[in-house]
Amino acid sequence: MTVLARRAAAEFIGTAFLVMAVVGSGVMASRLSPDDAGLQLLQNSLATGAALVALIVALQPVSASFNPVVTLVERALVMIDTGTAATLIVGQVLGGLAGTVAANLMFGLDAVSWSTHQRTGPSLWLAEVIATVGLLLVIFGTVRSGRADRVAFAVGGYITAAYWFTSSTSFANPAVTIARTVTDTFAGIAPPSAPAFILAQLLGGALGYFLVRFLYPSIASSAVATADRKVFS
Amino acid sequence: MTVLARRAAAEFIGTAFLVMAVVGSGVMASRLSPDDAGLQLLQNSLATGAALVALIVALQPVSASFNPVVTLVERALVMIDTGTAATLIVGQVLGGLAGTVAANLMFGLDAVSWSTHQRTGPSLWLAEVIATVGLLLVIFGTVRSGRADRVAFAVGGYITAAYWFTSSTSFANPAVTIARTVTDTFAGIAPPSAPAFILAQLLGGALGYFLVRFLYPSIASSAVATADRKVFS
Amino acid sequence: MTVLARRAAAEFIGTAFLVMAVVGSGVMASRLSPDDAGLQLLQNSLATGAALVALIVALQPVSASFNPVVTLVERALVMIDTGTAATLIVGQVLGGLAGTVAANLMFGLDAVSWSTHQRTGPSLWLAEVIATVGLLLVIFGTVRSGRADRVAFAVGGYITAAYWFTSSTSFANPAVTIARTVTDTFAGIAPPSAPAFILAQLLGGALGYFLVRFLYPSIASSAVATADRKVFS
Amino acid sequence: MTVLARRAAAEFIGTAFLVMAVVGSGVMASRLSPDDAGLQLLQNSLATGAALVALIVALQPVSASFNPVVTLVERALVMIDTGTAATLIVGQVLGGLAGTVAANLMFGLDAVSWSTHQRTGPSLWLAEVIATVGLLLVIFGTVRSGRADRVAFAVGGYITAAYWFTSSTSFANPAVTIARTVTDTFAGIAPPSAPAFILAQLLGGALGYFLVRFLYPSIASSAVATADRKVFS
Repeated sequence: MTVLARRAAAEFIGTAFLVMAVVGSGVMASRLSPDDAGLQLLQNSLATGAALVALIVALQPVSASFNPVVTLVERALVMIDTGTAATLIVGQVLGGLAGTVAANLMFGLDAVSWSTHQRTGPSLWLAEVIATVGLLLVIFGTVRSGRADRVAFAVGGYITAAYWFTSSTSFANPAVTIARTVTDTFAGIAPPSAPAFILAQLLGGALGYFLVRFLYPSIASSAVATADRKVFS
Repeated sequence: MTVLARRAAAEFIGTAFLVMAVVGSGVMASRLSPDDAGLQLLQNSLATGAALVALIVALQPVSASFNPVVTLVERALVMIDTGTAATLIVGQVLGGLAGTVAANLMFGLDAVSWSTHQRTGPSLWLAEVIATVGLLLVIFGTVRSGRADRVAFAVGGYITAAYWFTSSTSFANPAVTIARTVTDTFAGIAPPSAPAFILAQLLGGALGYFLVRFLYPSIASSAVATADRKVFS
Repeated sequence: MTVLARRAAAEFIGTAFLVMAVVGSGVMASRLSPDDAGLQLLQNSLATGAALVALIVALQPVSASFNPVVTLVERALVMIDTGTAATLIVGQVLGGLAGTVAANLMFGLDAVSWSTHQRTGPSLWLAEVIATVGLLLVIFGTVRSGRADRVAFAVGGYITAAYWFTSSTSFANPAVTIARTVTDTFAGIAPPSAPAFILAQLLGGALGYFLVRFLYPSIASSAVATADRKVFS
Repeated sequence: MTVLARRAAAEFIGTAFLVMAVVGSGVMASRLSPDDAGLQLLQNSLATGAALVALIVALQPVSASFNPVVTLVERALVMIDTGTAATLIVGQVLGGLAGTVAANLMFGLDAVSWSTHQRTGPSLWLAEVIATVGLLLVIFGTVRSGRADRVAFAVGGYITAAYWFTSSTSFANPAVTIARTVTDTFAGIAPPSAPAFILAQLLGGALGYFLVRFLYPSIASSAVATADRKVFS
């Protein structure tokens, strides 16, 4: 078994659990607290952030991006090659879909059902751009300054917060966006709404790339060692 | 006093406090927020996760599995021998029961009363399998990559999240499952429901074992040192 | 200015902020969420735990026990001498009272008013014993195994959880108990209820001392270095 | 591009995201949980604290004060020179305003609208003094004792708690106070209320400076190395 296969498997399983956390906690929240959408989002955001801490700590030494935009920026920063990036992204997208199916089944729902939750409009698209810029700033600012050991806490904190401070509740992840189209529950997004979200995320990715390059023009010496050992992604 | 006795004592006291956190916070939550089951689960999940952080940080250098499935996987990975595993599991089961008794008494209830809370069905059993696989992935992924110093935060985050994203609220622990049969409160599980939960956890344990072996075929050199010092479990 | 004076000042200011967190967040919670006692306790417990993380990280290198029982156990473990212990405890008690006064004034209440909140009965006293044993286990287990750098997170997690899993909401601290008698708000305790709470805490302190000695008979070599530099307490 | 320009940019972007977290989560909270002000503050405080963890971890190696009072105390402690301090403060104020505008636009509101939320009176001013003293104690206590790697967690915990234990909900930051005048939402502050808040924060800054000097008269040797590498601010 090659290293790349293990990395793709880590992206698959990690993204699957991440999406399970997003979708599953959304179902649980809307069933148990049906009358307060804010309480639902609190439950959903804390579960997602807490899951991210666990998954990144556990899988980072193999591969723990769980997000095609992050993988693309790693490719742009020449941290990985094109073939690796493509393989990891396939793992992320398939893992995300598997996560939705697992969440649906755990809660006694059909394995797959298209979401009818429309999420559209310029305010939400702006929010996705900003959410993705911030996520990249947090991940690569942390990694490039030689603090990869704390990226799990930074990302967990960021996503918990971004659910609240962006009007889109911060998808910020194309693989997760695709996965959320196949559940007609709290966390779902209707398929017609998905392309614009993904486009906004990619735009945010490009902006984030330049921001990271500007703020961290060179990688910290301690971070070089980290990158050599491929601790992150 | 032998090292093994101290380790068994650590498993006893740690599992007792863990179960107190699960059961006690469930009683408090259902008394103080009687009208919102989601708010109860939020209180219950945050208390459990926060307790796990504290207990694992404090007891890890002695022994801090608190979970027979984890101990069995350590045995399968040849981290401990059979006699040690058996002794630790006895400590966990007895500690869990003591924790329920303590929680019941602190809240003015009978020391022991069988739970009448039925938890059954294929969706819940699937959830227990998935919950246990994820827990093992988090624990052993973290430990085998030489990050045992962060396992407390990873496990605390995972369990807080898994309460929400699994339909079974993620027992994922046979000792805790047994302990939760003797309290007729929020966190209880009716004795007839327990065997299937435990079976699902053991199945998840087996699957998790193979997943860990696949993703982390060899132990990190830094983790070897850690294992030598028996920092985890 | 002697080192001891600085340490006593750190105990004063730290305990003052801790009690402000306990009392102040209780007032805010009961004003903003008047209809759900569970939501109030959630707010109160999260604010207290979060404040503990901050205060211990910031003050630990000077002195950060904030709790006479902890200081007494340090004395029993010969980590400090009797004069130091007495001085620190004076700082804690006075700091706690100053914290209540500050909280009362910030919320427009009389500087001092006796609490009328009765908290009494064997269940609550048992809870205080258990809460204190657990707190000592968490603090000294962490410190004696050379992990003093994580005690802030362990204590913050433990107290957040213990608010929920003990029927007494886990005072576990004589200085804080005294301070909470002079505010007639959510977190108050009527003066007649205080002596039994403090007695239970001292009993828990004695039990905790023996438990710590049993589980951690010797101090880890890395912890010795830590103790030499007086990082904790 | 000079180092100073990058540092000012980091203060701009970091303060912008911090204010987005404060203002945006306030809008989301008041829309989703309109009937419980306590639940709104819980959502707002957790989002703010979680964002601070992420932003400080990511930006600290460049510059991560996000607060003119913190920058002024760094100047008083001769950690930075006057020109640097002035430049960073300009970045903070402009970044804060940009953050409010971004939050308003993401939620479909006018880019700028004056707040009508009066916040005034001696109790609130006392609260701002205390909140700022505590913040400085947490930041500089942590940094001066050579623990700059944990300042993100300490500050995140402190602010989450201080939202609850101060009657003013702990602005404690002139740049954020100014930024919050231009949004007529949950987190806003009416312009006439802002000057007294800022004055109280500056007074707290002066008191905090002396407290830090008293408790940490010399900087830890490990912290000196840290300061040399300009890890904090």
